[in-house]
Amino acid sequence: MDLKEILQKSDLRIFVIFLLLISVTLVFAQEKKGIPYPAGYRGWAHIKSMLIFDEKHPLYNPFGGLHHIYVNAKGLTAYRKGGSFPDGTVIVFDLLETKMDQGAYVEGSRKFIGVMQKDSKKFKETGGWGFDAFEKDTKNSSVKDGGKSCFNCHTSQKEKDYVFSNYRL
Amino acid sequence: MDLKEILQKSDLRIFVIFLLLISVTLVFAQEKKGIPYPAGYRGWAHIKSMLIFDEKHPLYNPFGGLHHIYVNAKGLTAYRKGGSFPDGTVIVFDLLETKMDQGAYVEGSRKFIGVMQKDSKKFKETGGWGFDAFEKDTKNSSVKDGGKSCFNCHTSQKEKDYVFSNYRL
Repeated sequence: MDLKEILQKSDLRIFVIFLLLISVTLVFAQEKKGIPYPAGYRGWAHIKSMLIFDEKHPLYNPFGGLHHIYVNAKGLTAYRKGGSFPDGTVIVFDLLETKMDQGAYVEGSRKFIGVMQKDSKKFKETGGWGFDAFEKDTKNSSVKDGGKSCFNCHTSQKEKDYVFSNYRL
Repeated sequence: MDLKEILQKSDLRIFVIFLLLISVTLVFAQEKKGIPYPAGYRGWAHIKSMLIFDEKHPLYNPFGGLHHIYVNAKGLTAYRKGGSFPDGTVIVFDLLETKMDQGAYVEGSRKFIGVMQKDSKKFKETGGWGFDAFEKDTKNSSVKDGGKSCFNCHTSQKEKDYVFSNYRL
């Protein structure tokens, strides 16, 4: 192998390393748009609940079922007192199937959780909120558009810092 | 007024004071059976929910509506891991009216809250639990029999330390 060959092979190696670095950067940038699974949210404060039972309800698909809204300690004061939510707020929309039992709706398995996380710099393009969802009881993110579709609907609540729910006393 | 009369009046005063002391003691003993209003329970962990909507449901009267179960920090581990609840546990049954809106049940005003407080010495006669209820948004106790009627129904759950609800994951 002469010097020229060695240099060519080195170039190839450098090129491959360069490609790898780009891929890692892209994956990282992609991940930055997601939201970590909100571990421990079932111990957080409960804001309100609602049961969408009729297919004719405009939100039945995909929100049919009994949902509960939870918030971490950082966001609770804003829910109670009004005003915008501080960075670090995490809100969880926990959607459950329901079963009819003798004239009552009881809670069934989880359909998915929707999550909003406030970070006014990171999620500047979507009102300061990142959006994500986790199917059933998994911890795998299932929102593929960086939360743009979620945000589209939440823009109607711009005056309430893009949050639909109100704290029930 | 001679000495005899003065003594008789003194006796009367002592008797009246004695009666007053007895009354205060009795009121105090009565209050000891009650439970303080569970201040701040809306920030506690949420165990589960259920909506009883049909009059035919055996518990519709008085439990018709959407109820949520909350527990204070002391009782949360027992809910999650099983076993009996430690003294100091407070469980709240928060019952709300519901309103129908476009094929959904939304939360209405509060009917009452039911409260269980664990104190194995103080409430020895009712499984170690004190029971009370507070109508609507008031903080006035409304259980008049020291919780015996509540306990009668809860005895069916003796194996679960007299608690009906199970923690929903």
